[in-house]
Amino acid sequence: MTAQQPSDKALVPFVSVDHMMQLIHRIGLEDMLRGLGEYIEQDFRRWELFDKTPRIASHSAEGVIELMPTSDGEVYGFKYVNGHPKNTKEGLQTVTAFGLLADVSTGYPVLLSEMTMLTALRTAATSAMVAKHLAPKGADTMAMIGNGAQSEFQTLAMKAILGLKSVRLYDTDPAATRKCAANLAGHGIDVVACATPEEAIEGAQILTTCTADKQFATILTDNMVGSGVHINAIGGDCPGKTELAAGILQRSDIFVEFPPQTRIEGEIQQLAEDHPVTELWQVISGTAPGRTSNRQITLFDSVGFAIEDFSALRYVHDRLADTGLYLALDMLADPDDPRDLFGMLQRATPGAAA
Amino acid sequence: MTAQQPSDKALVPFVSVDHMMQLIHRIGLEDMLRGLGEYIEQDFRRWELFDKTPRIASHSAEGVIELMPTSDGEVYGFKYVNGHPKNTKEGLQTVTAFGLLADVSTGYPVLLSEMTMLTALRTAATSAMVAKHLAPKGADTMAMIGNGAQSEFQTLAMKAILGLKSVRLYDTDPAATRKCAANLAGHGIDVVACATPEEAIEGAQILTTCTADKQFATILTDNMVGSGVHINAIGGDCPGKTELAAGILQRSDIFVEFPPQTRIEGEIQQLAEDHPVTELWQVISGTAPGRTSNRQITLFDSVGFAIEDFSALRYVHDRLADTGLYLALDMLADPDDPRDLFGMLQRATPGAAA
Repeated sequence: MTAQQPSDKALVPFVSVDHMMQLIHRIGLEDMLRGLGEYIEQDFRRWELFDKTPRIASHSAEGVIELMPTSDGEVYGFKYVNGHPKNTKEGLQTVTAFGLLADVSTGYPVLLSEMTMLTALRTAATSAMVAKHLAPKGADTMAMIGNGAQSEFQTLAMKAILGLKSVRLYDTDPAATRKCAANLAGHGIDVVACATPEEAIEGAQILTTCTADKQFATILTDNMVGSGVHINAIGGDCPGKTELAAGILQRSDIFVEFPPQTRIEGEIQQLAEDHPVTELWQVISGTAPGRTSNRQITLFDSVGFAIEDFSALRYVHDRLADTGLYLALDMLADPDDPRDLFGMLQRATPGAAA
Repeated sequence: MTAQQPSDKALVPFVSVDHMMQLIHRIGLEDMLRGLGEYIEQDFRRWELFDKTPRIASHSAEGVIELMPTSDGEVYGFKYVNGHPKNTKEGLQTVTAFGLLADVSTGYPVLLSEMTMLTALRTAATSAMVAKHLAPKGADTMAMIGNGAQSEFQTLAMKAILGLKSVRLYDTDPAATRKCAANLAGHGIDVVACATPEEAIEGAQILTTCTADKQFATILTDNMVGSGVHINAIGGDCPGKTELAAGILQRSDIFVEFPPQTRIEGEIQQLAEDHPVTELWQVISGTAPGRTSNRQITLFDSVGFAIEDFSALRYVHDRLADTGLYLALDMLADPDDPRDLFGMLQRATPGAAA
């Protein structure tokens, strides 16, 4: 061991994309979605404990780069995430992400992880955990409008957490629907490819919209949505990007993660600033009503919040230790004497005695 | 090559602490300090281009964790940094840091780097670059009050950028002074260990204070500071942490990085909110005067700003390509079809055909 060999505290476990995929297969995708849903639900129950701040966004003509920090007082976490709709044309992902957990008492990072894959799982697990609280009893059929990268995860999370039996797929691009249907084959769920959105919502109690246009779009029109459904609106998640006709919002009871963020980024940016919404953590902790009748339209105006990423990182951190599915990164300078950073550098001179 | 093998775009170069130390030795510490000073100076000249925001801090009883983002419109960068004064007692660093650069047009990260070591260099390079603009002509002697982790870097940056010939060391702990003097031996600078701060400032035209107490302290009292000096105040860098008597501030012309941040974190938190200060970028770009007389006291109230970290990461990124001193991290999920994240996961099933 040479003088500059880092100590354990200076090494940060890093979960690569490949590690994450292996971890998902090791645990089992549906089990992991259920586990993530439980961690997210736990953190919604202790919502008031958390340091909450809207994400810190850096906008450009091409897209946005955001930092989403939060802390429960013992653990600190943040996610880096970009959103660049034009990336797809260049063969790149619209959204990529990574995240970090740190120990509040020392400030030392304890986990660095890819989060492109993990965000897909946590978004789906959040949707399904929320649907478990808000969808009509016995809901077993979902319309999945938008059959992109999130669609299979949404479907399997609804199966794992809510007992979904059937999914009805629609996308403006039939190739996306074919891809989604092929991916879901053999996963124990009935898959129906539909030619129109109207056909997709037939008989569905849960309507999930997840499209990617960065502009005001109307994926569901007012006359398409009848009573007694739960709408899970995923795609409207930044200023100028919405998916639902305003008329639907007016007829719905609206549930959100963190109002200051959702009012800027969610479907409700179409409504007055004081339009009533219910915070999900209150429903989940039992201090506000969720669904109160079978005729009601409930709407989860999902934009994604830092606490869900925190929960997901916490889950990965808890499941990682025994797996070996990480790389220990020499990320923190850790001199024997903390005041002697310079001495550490000098001892690392090539050829210097260890 | 298997189906899940990441493409080049999905791989992010990571510079570990060991890589950074090797890079410093490869370039040479003083050359690197000069190079960093030039990059920082360039970015101060184009200051108005940058997206500037005060750091986003998460405070706890034990310390603080901060994110410091910025962007010049083409490149985005942020630094994660903690400050935990009690860490030293547990054999940990008070401050650790890492940073990231990303391409604004795609949102994809292009560099992840340790920044504990790099922050020490950029802080020193910033001090010396600023002293080059503000210190009295011919300044060649510095008092270095506080002989901790930053002291050697400050001294050698002043030598490399300003031509410092002599440093006079003082610390309340004589062991720190002995460590600093030993580390500086053989670096071509005259080192004088002093028993009192009064002795240390004798004949010095530059007074650098860099102590670590998280409380209002008075490292320099009013009667210790005569006319015609440049004060480089490093240690006062968070709310409640200052080093200089208010009387010195009243007699000085004060120069700062980013006033909204310095008024909260710097020495000037002791002054009225509208006390006049000069922004350094204006001095460096020639739109505001710096030192105007030999009798003047100039004070750089340094707290560290995101743009300096951005410059330092930019320098490392530019110097890295040929060195091989990095590890390519599989950090971004990169499916062949961006809409088919699920297919990528399925193809990574252990035992699946590639």
